[in-house]
Amino acid sequence: MSTDPSHLISKRAASRSALHFTNIPSSGAPKGFKPHPKPLALSYGMPNHGFFPIDSIDVNLVERPFQTTTATSSLPQVDKLSLTGSENGQQTKTPPSSLNTLPSVHISRHTDDPKLIDLARGLQYANVEGHAPLLQFTKNFITRTHKPNYEDWTTLISNGASDGLNKAADALLDPGDVVLVEEFTFSPFLRFSGNAGAIAVPVKIDLSNDSDGIDYDALVQQLDNWEKDHPDLPKPKALYTIATGQNPTGFTQSLEFRKKVYALAVKHDFAIIEDDPYGYLTLPKYRKPTVGEPKVDEITIDDYLENDLTPSYLEIDTTGRVVRIETFSKLFAPGLRLGFVVGHTKVITAIKNYSEVVNRGASGLTQTIVNNVIQDNFNGVDGWLEWILKMRLNYSYRKDLLLYSIFESEAYKKGYVDIIDPKAGMFVTLKVNLPENVNVVEKMKLLLFKLISVGVLVVPGYNMTVDLEFSKDRSNFFRLCYAPANNDDEILESGKRLTQGVYEFFENGLEF
Amino acid sequence: MSTDPSHLISKRAASRSALHFTNIPSSGAPKGFKPHPKPLALSYGMPNHGFFPIDSIDVNLVERPFQTTTATSSLPQVDKLSLTGSENGQQTKTPPSSLNTLPSVHISRHTDDPKLIDLARGLQYANVEGHAPLLQFTKNFITRTHKPNYEDWTTLISNGASDGLNKAADALLDPGDVVLVEEFTFSPFLRFSGNAGAIAVPVKIDLSNDSDGIDYDALVQQLDNWEKDHPDLPKPKALYTIATGQNPTGFTQSLEFRKKVYALAVKHDFAIIEDDPYGYLTLPKYRKPTVGEPKVDEITIDDYLENDLTPSYLEIDTTGRVVRIETFSKLFAPGLRLGFVVGHTKVITAIKNYSEVVNRGASGLTQTIVNNVIQDNFNGVDGWLEWILKMRLNYSYRKDLLLYSIFESEAYKKGYVDIIDPKAGMFVTLKVNLPENVNVVEKMKLLLFKLISVGVLVVPGYNMTVDLEFSKDRSNFFRLCYAPANNDDEILESGKRLTQGVYEFFENGLEF
Repeated sequence: MSTDPSHLISKRAASRSALHFTNIPSSGAPKGFKPHPKPLALSYGMPNHGFFPIDSIDVNLVERPFQTTTATSSLPQVDKLSLTGSENGQQTKTPPSSLNTLPSVHISRHTDDPKLIDLARGLQYANVEGHAPLLQFTKNFITRTHKPNYEDWTTLISNGASDGLNKAADALLDPGDVVLVEEFTFSPFLRFSGNAGAIAVPVKIDLSNDSDGIDYDALVQQLDNWEKDHPDLPKPKALYTIATGQNPTGFTQSLEFRKKVYALAVKHDFAIIEDDPYGYLTLPKYRKPTVGEPKVDEITIDDYLENDLTPSYLEIDTTGRVVRIETFSKLFAPGLRLGFVVGHTKVITAIKNYSEVVNRGASGLTQTIVNNVIQDNFNGVDGWLEWILKMRLNYSYRKDLLLYSIFESEAYKKGYVDIIDPKAGMFVTLKVNLPENVNVVEKMKLLLFKLISVGVLVVPGYNMTVDLEFSKDRSNFFRLCYAPANNDDEILESGKRLTQGVYEFFENGLEF
Repeated sequence: MSTDPSHLISKRAASRSALHFTNIPSSGAPKGFKPHPKPLALSYGMPNHGFFPIDSIDVNLVERPFQTTTATSSLPQVDKLSLTGSENGQQTKTPPSSLNTLPSVHISRHTDDPKLIDLARGLQYANVEGHAPLLQFTKNFITRTHKPNYEDWTTLISNGASDGLNKAADALLDPGDVVLVEEFTFSPFLRFSGNAGAIAVPVKIDLSNDSDGIDYDALVQQLDNWEKDHPDLPKPKALYTIATGQNPTGFTQSLEFRKKVYALAVKHDFAIIEDDPYGYLTLPKYRKPTVGEPKVDEITIDDYLENDLTPSYLEIDTTGRVVRIETFSKLFAPGLRLGFVVGHTKVITAIKNYSEVVNRGASGLTQTIVNNVIQDNFNGVDGWLEWILKMRLNYSYRKDLLLYSIFESEAYKKGYVDIIDPKAGMFVTLKVNLPENVNVVEKMKLLLFKLISVGVLVVPGYNMTVDLEFSKDRSNFFRLCYAPANNDDEILESGKRLTQGVYEFFENGLEF
């Protein structure tokens, strides 16, 4: 089978070129022409780096999450939770004296180390696909974590996951094309597919507790009966899926499940846009946490890679039809607006040409800082994975704390709510066991007002649908995220307020 | 006259909304609903800042351009220029000992100073329009330099000028709309207008030495006869102009000229996209430089603002139809990918909604560093203008050095070339005085090969046309940029190689 996905690239993307007016003529040289070996350039509108006001940068780092962050509880003292075992939670205060020994990375104007980006280059115009050292890191990282199943792949630095997704949509979708989307999804993707002129059609999700997310049988039916059911629409050109720790439901597709979906992609000839913003944050099954003791389990990198991390669609792709979207937002920081895209070189070239139109690539200063922190402080791929494992420990503990506060609640014990325990990511689904024959969206909206009034903000599933009418009866859930909380207390209190609100709502006959 | 430019906003841009799935419901609250005064958020998929590996950043700065940059001449010693008065040029070497006293800006995780961005915010998700302190700086800066002539204007942080231009094109142009573009231009704009589906139509440039750029009489004719000459095209929706230090020609439109063009915009109801990447780098008329002595003149900020800086179209806009595109690329560094857009709030809102689609705003880390360097080191607008004046001095000197090396040449003395001395920016136009009745583009391409062979790279005008057929007879010039050179020697040597190449070309009967 061919690994050339050219036929999947949108006509608009394929028609773009990367020519620049400063390019040297590529043909028509007169007889005897020989370019000068050391030309001087009056061509580029590029300030010499001597004009840059920044001479060097020192980046001061922590060795573990929350090392220097003092837990500042936002809870009023009168409202103290009885189940809190520790006042300070996981954010152990480090005495100021020991901070003197924290690591630091110095970024200078010039360096000869090929793994690093210096400021003379990082602050200068650069290729839209990103700086070479950071591109090399992303290739090394993907080779270690999710090695594609073919040779002709590459990466491109994006301005974060949203940018990567918009560019993937542009590369694959023409006006009128159909993209399949999980019925509950990261709904900004609909802006990106809409910007390409494409039509998003929902794919049913199986919301039972041990689901892989997508309802496979429904997907098979949908594809097999496409022409009959959608005489006005072309067959799908792509599937957009958050396959690990799905947003909002939290489901993770197993490797076996992915193989089945991939076989459908080959059979029906559609591309797969795999969005994976936080899949590296794998989460063990719920175990009752010891409040104030964040450690849940420690594993080696090899264990993690072999047994814990779910393989990417890239690893089973034999036809170049998978585009994977990664981001540094959840593992480093969202304000970087930095991520990368992995895919077949032909798709990445199409994305590169679109990058020349929409933003000329990610901030070089940001690329420089992230690259040099990863290379110089974390010493490359495995050190970066060690950092990810530290993040993972903290997130595992946070997830279990939130579940604990829910499991201990009256609302849970009375069966008003149920939980989907995620295998990865940042999101827990709280299913609300509404009786049959109620208007699900109406009741969930009323319950949302109840929760806001008792002081907890959550995202209702009905806000994240592709087509509310299609999904209204399955919208009886909230997305809960344990990432923003400042400390243990806030997580526990959030769960308490949440379940208390649900309890009162049910006890009041599903009324506010 | 109304300052509401709503009718100029593209249908596509007007149809976008900024709703997000985490928004709290704006209507439908049940009776008795009162939001909790201190809600806890399980809603946002936002990592707590305690997960960020960076604790603080120290940015080490210089006090003037080239302060710490050792001049490294790339010239072979055998090829030393006779007209070089100094071996080291303008980049005075600073002894390492004095570098200890260079200024530095410390960026911490938390600050209460409203002018600064701390890392807890700078590394976090943020509004696509940019961080409040940097937005405030851009407003203060524009108020000081180019105060709009109406109240209802605002700014938006972009990912550099290209991003700002693409967003302005999207905000104003629908498929099939016409945008007028200077016939020689920053040709990547054609990608942006093309991405919006618009048709670019060239406006003639007057290439005589004291021109304002655009050929005003030709523009009047073009607009008055539009329906007759273009029965198949709608009347222009916008004019794209680089009004100060035009790229590539270097021309600057006077205030009086802008008033005349603006009156045409009102009469024919089109918007003006004013691209101004380096207009702050104003340049005095050529005076013979003293090689090795960069100082040409020193002026106060008030002098500069009152007498030197050409006013923006914003300053004469009474109808909200001007969108001004600025960038930090040329005044701070291109690798920031950072700029801003100034315009009517309705146009900026349209651009904001597009930003949610194409990149979710500029790097927050980069915004943090730039904002805090400007606020903390330069102490805001006037300190930043002082830095710009230092840049301006250096660029003035560079421009005069390049012109000097050309004026001293045989090619100039024999009348083979002519120069347009720019009033601002980075570009000098070298006109090649070809005889009539030659194929201009063919001869210029041949001459370009000659120049590459003698070791100088320049941009031929014919590479920067909107429509080569329209402009071919006026394409007898090269764009020269004195910004990238490492030192005086390189600038002088570039001019020497350039004029030597032209001389040989002419002496050889316009042959290679």
